[in-house]
Amino acid sequence: MTAKQDSGRSYHLQCTGEALATARAHSSPGSITLFGSCFCPFVQRVWVTLEHLGIDYMKPAELLESSPKGLVPALRLDNYEPPRALNESTVIMDFLEELATSNTKRSSHTTESLFPPSSDPYARALIRLQADNVNRSLVPAFYRYLQAQDEAKQVEGARGFVEAIEGLLALFKRAEREGYTQYGLWHERGLLSYADVMAAPWLFRATNVLKHYRGFVLPEGEQFRAYVDRVINHPAFKRTGSTEDLYLDSYERYAYNRPNTSQVANAINAGTALP
Amino acid sequence: MTAKQDSGRSYHLQCTGEALATARAHSSPGSITLFGSCFCPFVQRVWVTLEHLGIDYMKPAELLESSPKGLVPALRLDNYEPPRALNESTVIMDFLEELATSNTKRSSHTTESLFPPSSDPYARALIRLQADNVNRSLVPAFYRYLQAQDEAKQVEGARGFVEAIEGLLALFKRAEREGYTQYGLWHERGLLSYADVMAAPWLFRATNVLKHYRGFVLPEGEQFRAYVDRVINHPAFKRTGSTEDLYLDSYERYAYNRPNTSQVANAINAGTALP
Repeated sequence: MTAKQDSGRSYHLQCTGEALATARAHSSPGSITLFGSCFCPFVQRVWVTLEHLGIDYMKPAELLESSPKGLVPALRLDNYEPPRALNESTVIMDFLEELATSNTKRSSHTTESLFPPSSDPYARALIRLQADNVNRSLVPAFYRYLQAQDEAKQVEGARGFVEAIEGLLALFKRAEREGYTQYGLWHERGLLSYADVMAAPWLFRATNVLKHYRGFVLPEGEQFRAYVDRVINHPAFKRTGSTEDLYLDSYERYAYNRPNTSQVANAINAGTALP
Repeated sequence: MTAKQDSGRSYHLQCTGEALATARAHSSPGSITLFGSCFCPFVQRVWVTLEHLGIDYMKPAELLESSPKGLVPALRLDNYEPPRALNESTVIMDFLEELATSNTKRSSHTTESLFPPSSDPYARALIRLQADNVNRSLVPAFYRYLQAQDEAKQVEGARGFVEAIEGLLALFKRAEREGYTQYGLWHERGLLSYADVMAAPWLFRATNVLKHYRGFVLPEGEQFRAYVDRVINHPAFKRTGSTEDLYLDSYERYAYNRPNTSQVANAINAGTALP
C-alpha cells in the first residue's frame, strides 16, 4: 500500500535528456527506423543494441500514435520494396546482432557484438540462459511487483523480484566459475552482453520507478551493486536514457494498476504470458 | 467436462515404438547425452534437433529419476572436464544449431540447419518470430486447454488453442507473401525449420492427447492439415515418437489436473510464466 495518491500522470510521448539528444542525432531517414515510446523498456533494449553495435538507424523522438501497441518496439526496414517490419524485442535484437556480424564478415571490419564468437557455442549458450531467465523471470516479476496494490501482494512482489535477481546472479556466477569472465558486465572487465542489454532497462527502472513507488532498495552485495552501476552507466545505455521524471510519470499508471494501461500490464493482471 | 474417469495412469518411464529403437541405436556413451522423459514435448524438440542435424549423441531409453525436474530436457556435455550441463529446450536448440553450423565451417562438410543462411538475417528473423509465437502462445494455450476442468473453461481453452494456431499460421503466410518459401514445412517444398521443430510436439499431441481427452479436432483448412501431416511425418520427428498409449497414459495427470503434475502444469494453474 502506498501513501501517495494517483495523480493521473501518464506516458510521456517524447524523449528527454540524453535520449532526446541521441534521437535528434538520428533523425535523418535511414534504412532502419525504430518506432516505440521512450519510456518503454522493450524499446530501450533495442535502442541500446543499435547504439552498441554501431548500426545506422533513425529514431523519431516523438510518438506519433499513443495506442497500446504503438508503445512497444517495431523496426521498419526501408531497404526492401515494399518496406518490411519486425516486432518483438528479442527477435529484433537477434536480427540486429546477426546483421552486424554478417556485415563484419562481408566487409572484414571489426565490429561490436553482444555474443561470444560463433566458434564457442557453449559460451553463447550461457549468455542465452541468462537472457532466457531475464525474460521469463525478471521482467514479469518487475510488473507483478509494480502492479501489486495491497500490502501483502507488494511484499510478495518484492520477494519475487529479488528472487528473480538472485536467479540471474546464480547464472552469472556459474559462467564465472566455468571460466567465462570475458562476456558480460558482471565480470569487472567483461564486455556488454545480450543478457546485460535484456536486463538493463528493468534494473534501471528498479533504481527509480520501483524505488519511488514501492520504496524498493536493490539487494545488498557489493558485486551486484557494482554490476548494476556498470550496466546503467554503460555509454550505449546512457545514450538512450531520459530524465527521471519521464519514468516516474510514465509508470504511475502501472503503480496504481489503472485498467488498460498496456498489453504488458493486462497480461500480468490476467496471469498470461507477456505479449 | 469429460465423461471419462481419472484412472490414475501416469508418466511412462521408458520410450516405446520408434523412439525406443532410436534410443537403443544411441545407447553408447558420446560427448553429448540427452536426459529427460520420452513423453515430454520439450525433450522431444531437442531430440528431433539432434536427429535432424546429424549430431552424435546418447539418449537413455529409461528415466533414472522421475522427479518433476527430471522430466524436462537436460544436456550433459562430456567433452569438458568436469562435464557441463545445459537446460532450457530453446537454449539447447540454439546451442545444437550453432554446434552443427560451426562444425560445418571447420570441416567444410555440408550439414543440415534449422535456419536460413547467416547471410540473410531477415529470413532468420521470420523463423524466430514464428518460434517466439509457438513458445509464448501455442504452448501455454495447449496446457490451459488440457488442464481446464469445467465445460466453460474447456470451451474457452479450445478457442484459445485455435487462436494460437491461427496466430502461427498468420506468420507462416506472411513469410510466404514475402517470398520466403524455402524455409519451413508450411511451404510444400520447404525445409524443416527451427519453428517447425518448436511446434511439432504440441501439434502432434493435439492429434492424440487433445483428441482423446477433449474431443479436439484440428481446425479445417487443407493447407494447415497438410502442414501438420508433413511435420508429424518428418523422418526426424517420427524417429522420436513413441506409441500412442504412452502419450495417452502420460497426459492423464494433466487432463484431470492432478496436483503437482509437473512444473509446467503448476505454472499454468498459478498463471505464471512456464518454467
